[in-house]
Amino acid sequence: MKHILIFHCLLFTLFTGYAQQHALVFQTDFGLKDGAVAEMKGVAFTVSPKIPMFDLTHEIPAYNIWEAAYRLRQTAPYWPEGTVFVSVVDPGVGSSRKSVVLKTKSGHYFVTPDNGTLTLVAKQLGIAEIREINEAVNRRKNSGASYTFHGRDVYAYTAARLVAGVITFEEVGPRLPDTVVNIPFQQPVFENGILQGNIPVLDIQYGNIWTNIDAATFSRLQLKEGEKISITIYKGKQQIYKGSMPYVTTFSAVPEGKELAYLNSLLNLSFAVNMGNFSARHKVESGPEWKVTVSRQ
Amino acid sequence: MKHILIFHCLLFTLFTGYAQQHALVFQTDFGLKDGAVAEMKGVAFTVSPKIPMFDLTHEIPAYNIWEAAYRLRQTAPYWPEGTVFVSVVDPGVGSSRKSVVLKTKSGHYFVTPDNGTLTLVAKQLGIAEIREINEAVNRRKNSGASYTFHGRDVYAYTAARLVAGVITFEEVGPRLPDTVVNIPFQQPVFENGILQGNIPVLDIQYGNIWTNIDAATFSRLQLKEGEKISITIYKGKQQIYKGSMPYVTTFSAVPEGKELAYLNSLLNLSFAVNMGNFSARHKVESGPEWKVTVSRQ
Amino acid sequence: MKHILIFHCLLFTLFTGYAQQHALVFQTDFGLKDGAVAEMKGVAFTVSPKIPMFDLTHEIPAYNIWEAAYRLRQTAPYWPEGTVFVSVVDPGVGSSRKSVVLKTKSGHYFVTPDNGTLTLVAKQLGIAEIREINEAVNRRKNSGASYTFHGRDVYAYTAARLVAGVITFEEVGPRLPDTVVNIPFQQPVFENGILQGNIPVLDIQYGNIWTNIDAATFSRLQLKEGEKISITIYKGKQQIYKGSMPYVTTFSAVPEGKELAYLNSLLNLSFAVNMGNFSARHKVESGPEWKVTVSRQ
Repeated sequence: MKHILIFHCLLFTLFTGYAQQHALVFQTDFGLKDGAVAEMKGVAFTVSPKIPMFDLTHEIPAYNIWEAAYRLRQTAPYWPEGTVFVSVVDPGVGSSRKSVVLKTKSGHYFVTPDNGTLTLVAKQLGIAEIREINEAVNRRKNSGASYTFHGRDVYAYTAARLVAGVITFEEVGPRLPDTVVNIPFQQPVFENGILQGNIPVLDIQYGNIWTNIDAATFSRLQLKEGEKISITIYKGKQQIYKGSMPYVTTFSAVPEGKELAYLNSLLNLSFAVNMGNFSARHKVESGPEWKVTVSRQ
Repeated sequence: MKHILIFHCLLFTLFTGYAQQHALVFQTDFGLKDGAVAEMKGVAFTVSPKIPMFDLTHEIPAYNIWEAAYRLRQTAPYWPEGTVFVSVVDPGVGSSRKSVVLKTKSGHYFVTPDNGTLTLVAKQLGIAEIREINEAVNRRKNSGASYTFHGRDVYAYTAARLVAGVITFEEVGPRLPDTVVNIPFQQPVFENGILQGNIPVLDIQYGNIWTNIDAATFSRLQLKEGEKISITIYKGKQQIYKGSMPYVTTFSAVPEGKELAYLNSLLNLSFAVNMGNFSARHKVESGPEWKVTVSRQ
Repeated sequence: MKHILIFHCLLFTLFTGYAQQHALVFQTDFGLKDGAVAEMKGVAFTVSPKIPMFDLTHEIPAYNIWEAAYRLRQTAPYWPEGTVFVSVVDPGVGSSRKSVVLKTKSGHYFVTPDNGTLTLVAKQLGIAEIREINEAVNRRKNSGASYTFHGRDVYAYTAARLVAGVITFEEVGPRLPDTVVNIPFQQPVFENGILQGNIPVLDIQYGNIWTNIDAATFSRLQLKEGEKISITIYKGKQQIYKGSMPYVTTFSAVPEGKELAYLNSLLNLSFAVNMGNFSARHKVESGPEWKVTVSRQ
């Protein structure tokens, strides 16, 4: 019977250990041409060969913290709770920015320098708790002499140990106040019949314009499918585009080459050219300084 | 003994469950710069954390259904039966194209809009059965309001549930007739001493020209290694290239900078410049409208 | 009791089999736009669905054996012993270069054409044993007619069988002498107050210049943080750059746009522009023919 109990324990460990294995998702601005990403994954694999590893993207434009923030906010909701994201866009490596792990109210973890990268997930998913990485413990052994690759020696290492259960969230390091470094941007608002919002990113591959105006805010215009809206786009205070287009639910509702407004896959108001490139045609780009106003025509 | 039987069952489940876990392979035209691919994988990981996931490519040129068709045909034969491919090149998202799963006679599954993407795998691997995805059941929960990202909400979700065994192939939806939407192209033929064929794709990285003329058809020219062939390449009816080159089995059989004909890694007739770029030198590209004729010199 | 022993064996096999599953890491110059990488992974998955597969990079510039050599040397030390790397940068496919597996003293395996790719890992990690792949046994079944894709039919196939334990290292093929094909380059040396070294690669994404001058060799200049060094960079015998800059441990120690010297993440001497691109500014590139001299100012 003793043996049988041991088997029970072993099987239980095996099953639950396996079932509980959460994913580790990497994001960087390193690109895919060199070995940096593979170094990070090697460190994580050394921590535990059982971690399912995935890539969000490694093509964040160099030093673009804002886009890193957006990509986390875009994808995290589609991963189950317990998923650990490690994001390394870190122009201030070696400076005084804090290395942290954010646990959101949704149960996701984000391991990153606190340099603005957490702006959008903190707002959207809610801050449950933030801890500063204690590098005295949570740093790859014998890596003390390297000042420049915290992505490998601190972030990937800590994220792997957290997702593999080698350390608990509490063991990451001391708790910080429930606030993150924020990048300011235009929140979606509706006032006097006019919507305002930000253009956080482009749908790059197709040149579509994505705003942060969500379906609920957009619904206050009370548009029916096919009705037209007037749109003005600004970079800071400079007007870049002014025009009008119908609100539709499928690109093919307008002829090829024509402009349209739609709710994108995140249910945010977006602008496109059917089978064309809105961004290239009108020189519209994205970032925290880009704003849009929308009204009924 | 009862316990022992339970162990047997558990072990059996564990072993076979593990052994049977097939792969899920993604292909899109989304690129790797944003979060779209990671959203799809998050949805699949939420269905089951045990699915081994791989990428075919996400660099299909935007809207290029033909190239999507070719990449599936190129790679599927190297994966074991039971592998599920999800391919999302979908210019008609939201329009009336059907969302389907093709099971081929080779035992592979293809989850995709039926818009021509299946042209080549249907022909090469054979149609065993096609089912239309019943979105009433096989659609991510609470995704009804998003019209534009079927890749995430329908295709990745259905593919993950199929490969993880959450649904059977029959539970995908109603069976359709054994036919797919086809893109027309020049089949490989031999007539009156002349081979005709199509240039489906380039070997992009090296600029080599790949035809769809297979080894068996090519053998009808009865060439020996080192003998020369005459080649004419057309885009539609316009002649783009005319020349001759030896048929060899290794690039280094001709001097650097010289042209050669060879059987590529898929055993199809191909043209290259040793250590150079045939495509760039002669402005030869690829697609369903590209044709080639080949004869003994 | 017999049953219990069988269970013991099964569990032991299961646990150790699982625990021992090493990683397979791919590197090629194929790019990610076509199906070549997915063909290799399909072959490996067919050998065993349990192999954890990772990518080093597939963006090695076409035919650039030197960069392939460097990327292996850069990343291998961060993976545990037992990891199998397969590297396919093979301009001589079909010629007489040998197909080999190198086992290093560090316990890593490298499956590759022996064409210079092993130059740096052989030197850094040490040669334990080299074996030539016996293609009579270690070649994908029915692939004999394809002359051009050894990456898929020989290298990926053999690497997968080795990492999955289907074959032992001895079963790869006959042992070769303990030497590899070497690409010559400037070793790091210190003489008469002057350091000499090579520029093996750039930190491409940021335009930083990486040398092969390690921390121990660099320390012979006895520099304190903030002290200046004089640097001259040559391509062959042609001088490309001459200048001076401070040695610092963090980029932000100099103003934006200013040059700096630092130890990179591999602890090699490197040069950068804070928030800028040293390579683009001074037309400095990398490769075996690039040299650098460094002295105190």
